[in-house]
Amino acid sequence: MDVSYPKGGSMVKTDRIDLKTKGNNDIVDITPEVNRALSDSQLKNGILTAFMPGSTASITTIEYEPGLVNEDLPKALETMAPSGVRYAHDSAWGEGNGHAHVRASIVGPGLTVPFSEGRLMLGTWQQIVLVDYDNRARSREVIVQIMGE
Amino acid sequence: MDVSYPKGGSMVKTDRIDLKTKGNNDIVDITPEVNRALSDSQLKNGILTAFMPGSTASITTIEYEPGLVNEDLPKALETMAPSGVRYAHDSAWGEGNGHAHVRASIVGPGLTVPFSEGRLMLGTWQQIVLVDYDNRARSREVIVQIMGE
Amino acid sequence: MDVSYPKGGSMVKTDRIDLKTKGNNDIVDITPEVNRALSDSQLKNGILTAFMPGSTASITTIEYEPGLVNEDLPKALETMAPSGVRYAHDSAWGEGNGHAHVRASIVGPGLTVPFSEGRLMLGTWQQIVLVDYDNRARSREVIVQIMGE
Repeated sequence: MDVSYPKGGSMVKTDRIDLKTKGNNDIVDITPEVNRALSDSQLKNGILTAFMPGSTASITTIEYEPGLVNEDLPKALETMAPSGVRYAHDSAWGEGNGHAHVRASIVGPGLTVPFSEGRLMLGTWQQIVLVDYDNRARSREVIVQIMGE
Repeated sequence: MDVSYPKGGSMVKTDRIDLKTKGNNDIVDITPEVNRALSDSQLKNGILTAFMPGSTASITTIEYEPGLVNEDLPKALETMAPSGVRYAHDSAWGEGNGHAHVRASIVGPGLTVPFSEGRLMLGTWQQIVLVDYDNRARSREVIVQIMGE
Repeated sequence: MDVSYPKGGSMVKTDRIDLKTKGNNDIVDITPEVNRALSDSQLKNGILTAFMPGSTASITTIEYEPGLVNEDLPKALETMAPSGVRYAHDSAWGEGNGHAHVRASIVGPGLTVPFSEGRLMLGTWQQIVLVDYDNRARSREVIVQIMGE
């Protein structure tokens, strides 16, 4: 007797992206690395969560072009939580990165993107980025959790 | 011999919502369309991700009443990233929507909502909305990715 | 004949966290309760969504220390959407919490965090928090939806 089993529903795959940032609103396009993680997972339909395990950086999307990345978004983040002013966090801990923590809490640490037929369903002019608000260069590890079938 | 298979765990369903917006912080209640997608999926428990494949609009939640939608949230977005000032994006691309890109990166392109017994677990006064920051009317497609059992 | 079935892929578990807040940017660390929900689910790998079914509070992450929690983040939220100024929402509904709605829409109602080997993949100095922007003490229920295997 042949017994053929059903596929067993969706599965989970974990990947990691290691990168170096320059800090100070350094915005890094991680779309190629996220695409590679999705391709390696061999999953075809589902959702992918990119998550920053840290409290001074965010994952979001942007049209990755120099004007937005080097000037416009950093300027708005500076309005939202200015650097160079007094933060209670800095008075207590002396790290000088209070503004980085505040920006990360507001923008958020993670992003969930659907994929279909093995491809992320991003817009044509939309990239996945890590925004590092910290006041120094950092080594960062982004978690990529992929669920699907 | 009868072989009864297990249910096979969770599954993935993809849907799309097409809509027209007026741009300029037009906030559109998409809760009815999202509910219909969930109902069509026949899934009962899981998470639903509504995602905007574009870089000048967001998905979030709000109590959908005229004061908040037509005045209060738009005003705060205008403070966060004013229109009518110079953006590097506009200098290079001439589209005049630099503020729209910046708002979208900060608020974010997507939203993940749990559902149980076939119903989204939203608050009573909480609707799912598309916020279109762009400086012109647009046709938009929102991805609805539903995972569950 | 022995028929051994495949594991059946990922599953969904729903939990709830009840808590009381003081309002006015009260930031409550819910990491212990979220960890307990994950442990109770017995799931090992997947994603966990913490979601606020309401429109005047958010879920995000922060390094939970007094300076950031009691002073720095509240101050930035006050810049983003000041209390004590006129909101159209308040003119119509008289609740005086227009600023709370606006902050919740910008920061967002939910958070999705990966987990692996039964542990949330948070940073060492990163906690999951409920931020209650409302202008009074509230009883809140946070939904915890866990999907994985």
